[in-house]
Amino acid sequence: MSERGQGMAADIAEQPAGYARLLDDEHATAIAEVAAQVAARRPRHVVFVGRGTSDHAALYAAYLTEIRLGLPVASASPSAITLFGARPDLSDALVIGVSQSGGSPDLTAVLDVARASGALTLAVTNNPSSPLATSAELSIDVAAGHERAVAATKTYTAELLALLLLIEGVRAGDGRLPAEERAAIAALPELAEKTLADDGVTELARRYRFAARMVTTGRGYAYPTARETALKLMETSYLPSLAFSGADLLHGPLAMTDPDVPVLAVVGSGPGGQSMRDVVTRLGERRADVVTVGAEDVPGAAGRLAVPAVDEKYAPLLDILPLQKLALALALTRGEDPDAPRGLKKVTETI
Amino acid sequence: MSERGQGMAADIAEQPAGYARLLDDEHATAIAEVAAQVAARRPRHVVFVGRGTSDHAALYAAYLTEIRLGLPVASASPSAITLFGARPDLSDALVIGVSQSGGSPDLTAVLDVARASGALTLAVTNNPSSPLATSAELSIDVAAGHERAVAATKTYTAELLALLLLIEGVRAGDGRLPAEERAAIAALPELAEKTLADDGVTELARRYRFAARMVTTGRGYAYPTARETALKLMETSYLPSLAFSGADLLHGPLAMTDPDVPVLAVVGSGPGGQSMRDVVTRLGERRADVVTVGAEDVPGAAGRLAVPAVDEKYAPLLDILPLQKLALALALTRGEDPDAPRGLKKVTETI
Repeated sequence: MSERGQGMAADIAEQPAGYARLLDDEHATAIAEVAAQVAARRPRHVVFVGRGTSDHAALYAAYLTEIRLGLPVASASPSAITLFGARPDLSDALVIGVSQSGGSPDLTAVLDVARASGALTLAVTNNPSSPLATSAELSIDVAAGHERAVAATKTYTAELLALLLLIEGVRAGDGRLPAEERAAIAALPELAEKTLADDGVTELARRYRFAARMVTTGRGYAYPTARETALKLMETSYLPSLAFSGADLLHGPLAMTDPDVPVLAVVGSGPGGQSMRDVVTRLGERRADVVTVGAEDVPGAAGRLAVPAVDEKYAPLLDILPLQKLALALALTRGEDPDAPRGLKKVTETI
Repeated sequence: MSERGQGMAADIAEQPAGYARLLDDEHATAIAEVAAQVAARRPRHVVFVGRGTSDHAALYAAYLTEIRLGLPVASASPSAITLFGARPDLSDALVIGVSQSGGSPDLTAVLDVARASGALTLAVTNNPSSPLATSAELSIDVAAGHERAVAATKTYTAELLALLLLIEGVRAGDGRLPAEERAAIAALPELAEKTLADDGVTELARRYRFAARMVTTGRGYAYPTARETALKLMETSYLPSLAFSGADLLHGPLAMTDPDVPVLAVVGSGPGGQSMRDVVTRLGERRADVVTVGAEDVPGAAGRLAVPAVDEKYAPLLDILPLQKLALALALTRGEDPDAPRGLKKVTETI
């Protein structure tokens, strides 16, 4: 028998190598070719489908699509199609299914319906022979290798990087990123290694040992990080965690924050982070216990998990790393086994 | 000084009259005219923007759009546009801003950008002279009257009905609903009255007096109800409440449910409800304490809030009523003042 949490710890530690692998010639070229095919088809809008962690990767890609490609993004509701028989006209759309296993029947059903209506379909999975990957017209393998723990970590960040390369490749037109951008992305494996080397989470896990609940928040590119952090905390520590965009937090849920509710706020080095500073101030007025994730200290926050300063569009690939470590450390502190959370299976089949 | 919660109680009680008002000749005709103009422009897809409660009304309309109109739905991220300068091409789109006050600068900014890119813009608000309503090309007044409590109730259901009339009117083409459908909708004021007369929530509020958290769930048309219920519980009782689609609940958060976490599950009389029965069974295996909202008892559930059996596409206009009453009753049981939650204002200005 292995030690508790060893699987999740190993998955987390492999992420810098996972980034380097996806950036090697073979994988980067494969993604560039898919990007060139997508660009040639000139989709008018992009639809993402995903569940759980993969839905958070899709959300990151949705921000990239809106901001970097200037295309509207739709989030198809699988239930509208699989349960209520909706048959939306997707003839102008690129429909991207994101799934670690590629084994969810409802996502495959959405891609089948989309393809039948003329959409360009693309699967982003960690299993190139999965039903999702084989039923889609195009497919990207995120090549993260076998994930040991039930809670997804390295497959999440591999999906983030694959989607970043895809969308920036579509922006470039031929899949080949401009040199400056290639250099910024090439730095990510080393920055990820550096981020993981920092041990700030150990103290934070002690601080949250008896927390009854948690709020996570971020805005723009950082919102998927807030969502994914909340899910990791729920999956591994059974800690009820509420994720809000910084703007939504001010519309109602702010009432719920008080000194007993720890808040994790992702505050990046750009316009999203700038707008989050006001949110941290408002939280401070309510005497909430705020810890930030970012490159700089924020007035009103009690602490900070340090991550390198990068352009906010790359930050989700680094910001999540200490937060995954926090979920793991907190689960262990609480006596849970994050490798095998109660009640969960690796592939969830919903129809 | 008025009694605690009196404002919210009055707002809740006015909802059947609010439905009747929106269905009178003057208001129904105004919405039908907007629907006819939308239909004539033949949008290829629909983008919704809203925050908080209004975002949940928009989510309901999104399901209607996908299922009843067969059009893809996009959810624009205001931050992508207001903070990151995204300028998506929305020339084929109908962009609908939903806002009780019509006073959120970020939503108005999104509609302005959309209109400049050639989109047809429509505001759905409770204030026809608000910035959102005046900056949009088309506007629908939900005519709910002054809302006393900070927590929105009657403006939410008025938004639901206005969006239902709009979308079914677009489906009809000329804004005039088929006779059978008109009859089904005309029954809603009386059904709402009947639903509000049931007093099942008093006992339930006692049951949840010391609950530390809550999970709400529903699928398809019922998912917005789960989201809105969670928000009401957070706003009025400061009770951390997590809303999940029934399918997402099985992907991770299920691990968090145990006998200490009460679950409110919306189980309708149609395909969404049918699929929720499996979710209730899975929750039962984890010995979660499940109470359903619906017209029939569900095996494995400990109790039920009764609502009339209607087509699932109309159910959100009834299902939320006992849940609003529950949020009010629970807040009062816990000694809170739901009319003036701490830290909240009626109009939240985010940019």
